Amino acid sequence: MREKNIPPLLAQEEVSKILNISSQKLEEAYWKGIIKNYQKHNLEAIQFRKGLGSMESGTMVVNGETIQVIRGFPKIRRTLMLKPTLKKHFLKEVAVEEKMNGYNVRITQIDNDIIAFTRGGYICPYTTRKAKEILDLDDFFQENPEMVICGEMVGTLNPYVSHYYREVGKLGFRIFDLREKQTNTPLPMKEKRDLLEEHDLEPVRLLGIFPVDEAPEKIIEIVKDLGANNREGVVMKDPMMQLEPLKYTSSQAQASELEYALSYPFDLAQAFLFSRIIREGFQAYEMAESTDELSKRALRMGESILYPMLETIRGVENGELAAEDLVIEVKNQNEAEEFIRHLRDLKVMATLVEIKDGKAVIRRIHQSTNDKVKNYLHGGLY
Amino acid sequence: MREKNIPPLLAQEEVSKILNISSQKLEEAYWKGIIKNYQKHNLEAIQFRKGLGSMESGTMVVNGETIQVIRGFPKIRRTLMLKPTLKKHFLKEVAVEEKMNGYNVRITQIDNDIIAFTRGGYICPYTTRKAKEILDLDDFFQENPEMVICGEMVGTLNPYVSHYYREVGKLGFRIFDLREKQTNTPLPMKEKRDLLEEHDLEPVRLLGIFPVDEAPEKIIEIVKDLGANNREGVVMKDPMMQLEPLKYTSSQAQASELEYALSYPFDLAQAFLFSRIIREGFQAYEMAESTDELSKRALRMGESILYPMLETIRGVENGELAAEDLVIEVKNQNEAEEFIRHLRDLKVMATLVEIKDGKAVIRRIHQSTNDKVKNYLHGGLY
Repeated sequence: MREKNIPPLLAQEEVSKILNISSQKLEEAYWKGIIKNYQKHNLEAIQFRKGLGSMESGTMVVNGETIQVIRGFPKIRRTLMLKPTLKKHFLKEVAVEEKMNGYNVRITQIDNDIIAFTRGGYICPYTTRKAKEILDLDDFFQENPEMVICGEMVGTLNPYVSHYYREVGKLGFRIFDLREKQTNTPLPMKEKRDLLEEHDLEPVRLLGIFPVDEAPEKIIEIVKDLGANNREGVVMKDPMMQLEPLKYTSSQAQASELEYALSYPFDLAQAFLFSRIIREGFQAYEMAESTDELSKRALRMGESILYPMLETIRGVENGELAAEDLVIEVKNQNEAEEFIRHLRDLKVMATLVEIKDGKAVIRRIHQSTNDKVKNYLHGGLY
Repeated sequence: MREKNIPPLLAQEEVSKILNISSQKLEEAYWKGIIKNYQKHNLEAIQFRKGLGSMESGTMVVNGETIQVIRGFPKIRRTLMLKPTLKKHFLKEVAVEEKMNGYNVRITQIDNDIIAFTRGGYICPYTTRKAKEILDLDDFFQENPEMVICGEMVGTLNPYVSHYYREVGKLGFRIFDLREKQTNTPLPMKEKRDLLEEHDLEPVRLLGIFPVDEAPEKIIEIVKDLGANNREGVVMKDPMMQLEPLKYTSSQAQASELEYALSYPFDLAQAFLFSRIIREGFQAYEMAESTDELSKRALRMGESILYPMLETIRGVENGELAAEDLVIEVKNQNEAEEFIRHLRDLKVMATLVEIKDGKAVIRRIHQSTNDKVKNYLHGGLY
């Protein structure tokens, strides 16, 4: 019934051994679409579209000079209530790092080439190029060839999550983890920061290491402060990195994500709405806000839901496209087109608007929002 | 493979003929759970859990002295934008009836017995009993045995949607359609109202019949006014009832539905959120509100999302159950228990709290909200 032509890399017995997943299971996963054959940028690999066994979604098994496993970045779970959760989850101390609003990138060296993977295990040509421009990684990887640098690509010239940070500006990379290729074992907090400093590589900000008992109160203050400065939130870690990290975000972050999602309601809102709203509920509860603070939070939430919708409806009525313009730096048309091809691989509909002063403007189209808003404006029934 | 013991009623060739659906298709639908065997209250019937062919969801094929088809009440679609939609949809005139906030009931006579079906085709024992108490239907059904009375059960002693209407109080029934059993053909607006008047039966309020061109403006005023009085909205109909009716609701109705849903966020919110928010977006756009009006709408929306969540979290923290108390009138314990059994048939978890002064308090428990809120309060991860 099913054809037997599975990709050559997957057919190698070694792969099954390295991953500790039976050949039969791997083959099954292949036919189910859990793992895919990936051939891009002179690289042959198996991409994990979903988790399988102990392999995280985003894991890449690369067929280089040797077979190498670049593990997916583990999903960081969220706390809705700091106080009970930190007490339950951590042992003595909690290290608090800033969670920045950008996109998750793993940088590693494969056969003397530096490659940047985005969350799902795609090689982003722009990210790979920029990582090499921004960072001087040769020494680091010479000394640590088995290491994966995990960090956030942030800034405004950012095709995925454009956010302005004063200290970053156009584009920057901040590192939160150093992990071992095959095992995904992270370095402890201090070793990581020491090693990064030694190589002049920039970590995310460490906002403090607190005893578990004091941590919730401190973190609430930190997160309020971050929110007031339009920053996202925190990741809380065991300093020894032996426990799963947790994340927690500011009300402003929730609001701005709602705002973004509701700008393209029929493309993004359904996936975003519920969880952001739940976060707000528990945060407001834990922060024990005054009537006035609550009312401000309610208004912020309502506005971040209502106003972007109105803006989009108005735009579509005026003949505009429900779309967002991404700006990236390019040296030539080729680089822009390469990136657009990459977006299309991700099923993102995008077109090149213009190239000017070394910057390409790429339009990401939210088609469902366009079609549905237009339909309702023309009398379509809901 | 599949067993052949389909229910006897379904096996009758006559059923297939009456419904104009082949025996094979009916049988398939039975195995898929689209239609079910229904035996309650001395009635044997086939219940349509979903639509099939031209039969609406909620249709009941009843095995009485003859086989009778009580068609499901047709889903009324919604307009998000009155102006373009009414123009596109209606011909000359639009009749505007009030949409009341209660639950949809079809009352009909089967073998000299009066029976009330709720939306899904269930026989609600409370509704059936109350319909007979509230309404004097004998004459009507003597003269119109082939008619189905479609209306809204409203008021506070209402186990499904308790809402206070000054003119109703505890419990009342307002009729919006008279339809023919087998064909579901509705009477035209005027004939319907004349026939109801003749029999002293109360219709929903007719708020006006407008030329299509003027209708949107009039309806916006009407709906604003209804909203300000905490009333739900309107149903717009072709006076001849030859076109599909449409519905449109007030911002206050959206807010109060959000409020209800967010009181039990892990049971109800996901299904409610998106559509209510979309309605608010288009309504705010069409009503071309001032900055001040928009801000009020945003605050109303934010408050109706945030505050009920807080209330529920607080309650669960204090050891309360996330539950709502329904109050119905009963003559004895038996009637209360019968109604609870009915709720359990609907997969609603409910317990009897007390019976006092002829009223039964029935607690409907929202289990997921209880469990999840408790879990997060005790440090569970999201």
